[in-house]
Amino acid sequence: MRAVVLTDGRLELTDLPDPVPAEGEVLVDVLACGICGTDLHCVRHGEELNEAMRNARGVGAFDLTRPIVLGHEFVGRVIAHGPGTTGRIRTGSRVVSVPASGRPDRAPIGFAGPETPGGLAERMVLSEKLLIEVPDHVPTELAALTEPLAVAHHAVARGDLGTEDVPLVVGCGPIGLAVVAVLRTRGAGPIIAADFSPERRALAKALGADVVVDPATASPYAAWADAAIADGRRARPTVAFECVGAPGVIGRIVAGAPARSRIVVAGLCMTPDVLEPAQAVLKELELRFAMMYSVAEFAETFELLAEGAFDVAPLITRTVGLADVPGVFESLASSPADAKVLVDPMR
Amino acid sequence: MRAVVLTDGRLELTDLPDPVPAEGEVLVDVLACGICGTDLHCVRHGEELNEAMRNARGVGAFDLTRPIVLGHEFVGRVIAHGPGTTGRIRTGSRVVSVPASGRPDRAPIGFAGPETPGGLAERMVLSEKLLIEVPDHVPTELAALTEPLAVAHHAVARGDLGTEDVPLVVGCGPIGLAVVAVLRTRGAGPIIAADFSPERRALAKALGADVVVDPATASPYAAWADAAIADGRRARPTVAFECVGAPGVIGRIVAGAPARSRIVVAGLCMTPDVLEPAQAVLKELELRFAMMYSVAEFAETFELLAEGAFDVAPLITRTVGLADVPGVFESLASSPADAKVLVDPMR
Repeated sequence: MRAVVLTDGRLELTDLPDPVPAEGEVLVDVLACGICGTDLHCVRHGEELNEAMRNARGVGAFDLTRPIVLGHEFVGRVIAHGPGTTGRIRTGSRVVSVPASGRPDRAPIGFAGPETPGGLAERMVLSEKLLIEVPDHVPTELAALTEPLAVAHHAVARGDLGTEDVPLVVGCGPIGLAVVAVLRTRGAGPIIAADFSPERRALAKALGADVVVDPATASPYAAWADAAIADGRRARPTVAFECVGAPGVIGRIVAGAPARSRIVVAGLCMTPDVLEPAQAVLKELELRFAMMYSVAEFAETFELLAEGAFDVAPLITRTVGLADVPGVFESLASSPADAKVLVDPMR
Repeated sequence: MRAVVLTDGRLELTDLPDPVPAEGEVLVDVLACGICGTDLHCVRHGEELNEAMRNARGVGAFDLTRPIVLGHEFVGRVIAHGPGTTGRIRTGSRVVSVPASGRPDRAPIGFAGPETPGGLAERMVLSEKLLIEVPDHVPTELAALTEPLAVAHHAVARGDLGTEDVPLVVGCGPIGLAVVAVLRTRGAGPIIAADFSPERRALAKALGADVVVDPATASPYAAWADAAIADGRRARPTVAFECVGAPGVIGRIVAGAPARSRIVVAGLCMTPDVLEPAQAVLKELELRFAMMYSVAEFAETFELLAEGAFDVAPLITRTVGLADVPGVFESLASSPADAKVLVDPMR
């Protein structure tokens, strides 16, 4: 099969043997796979990411000395059942799944080797018991957004929003936009969203932001604080979502946040960062760091998506083929016009 | 009256006119006043502290261009009632109070000028309605610990401890020790406490720590994680209290904390600080910054103290006179052997 392989920090389209379903696994054709910021991190900061994962979790770290097939936001179509499967999902069905392996090595799907490849390949093997069937009325492209929406769903859950909370979303890349979409389904508002890119601000509007701010020309924090004020005084709680993952952003939110704000950090900043603890102390801020989602949150997210709760089609700005992937990784690192880029291995 | 005055970053014992009680205020003789880390910050980092307070709260900032009389951990004895007072607390009664002024300028008592001096003086004026009477059985020195214990009470409340949480207290200065004492009254345990000073580790033991660690010879984080493990797996939630307020400490706790720990930051670090957001994200940590206490928390703390809930006498390592204050500020900045130093203006 064709697959994009990461070796020594370089992506290359190559031919690999089809993966072989182990006990309890099915073989799927990949129908679509989104490219995620973490994939970019893996290519550009693989060692740091791996070291941080090893330190943080002990497990889940990946082996950078071996080729890796990225892609953890996938939709597949079942083409064969491995040994010990129940057949509860029939051949021909479309499926999504959390990117986890049931194998003893607990390979992190999307960050593992060619025997358990991620979605940037023509075929994958998936644990049958983790599969969620995609109903006919749900387009494949939308189903491919389950994973980033689950990340946003979890980040919003970490924010523990009350009905009166005024949210600020800092950074309108795919995760920031997904957070806007999830906040919209929660009825939170007004939603303030900030990004330097006019394209991304337009997407934030389309996905449900009430106020969009270009930080180059106005303060997102002033707009946020204003929205929380009624009758001349602070009347509503404030919660921010850091969805950039670049150094300096947490510090700017800490400096700009009204007292007693909660700040959910969903961006993954791979370098050491500076902040002023005295400001956070004097304002009694709370920084809640958010990572991935639970299996239950993934399933809930898919259910909401299938019910049509999210109007997220605008999130997808391009669909490309496997051969385009190396170039797209280059451009995504610099282009702020793209939101979610999907890969269709059939192209 | 005699008072220690801070002018241009220098402390000096001097003579001031007695303060004059305004509407609703009483005049008190100061019986005891504790020296706090924030007082040291005010002398050494006055501008930064003031700027941070202005930025954080808008109000409560102090005027460093004028002389300041420090001291916000005071016990007084009522000697006269100003206009518009009710007399609900009689002359001769001992009192404590939150360090706030009822005057229109909302002067922060302990960080304001000679007309509303702090406790490093022979006399103060206090708002009658904020006074709490000290019953006869409560020694003056213990009553002087109400304020730092209220800070600890609030920090522990911010930690939102469940019955199973395993606490780590990083830094056993007065606030860290008070946090240990408050955790002990909550029945939390085992309590792990870390400090480089053998004297402070001994105090932590005396105040209720179950395990004390010298970070120079062993990892407090390993001791903490071990205490949370049962049957070979992580069995209990973990919560840390940062009570140092020096750069690097938050980062070390983030690096050392088990996944999903809560970290209450009670130390006030006045310089920019570095941390690795990726570690905090991958471990889904939570940083809750804590500042002071509410009026209700201060009153609750005093009630517990008066009931004998805290066995905190060991916290007080020295009592000095007003003339000693400038020298004590010098030594406190470098001496890790002292915990709480009280000033007795009658000496």
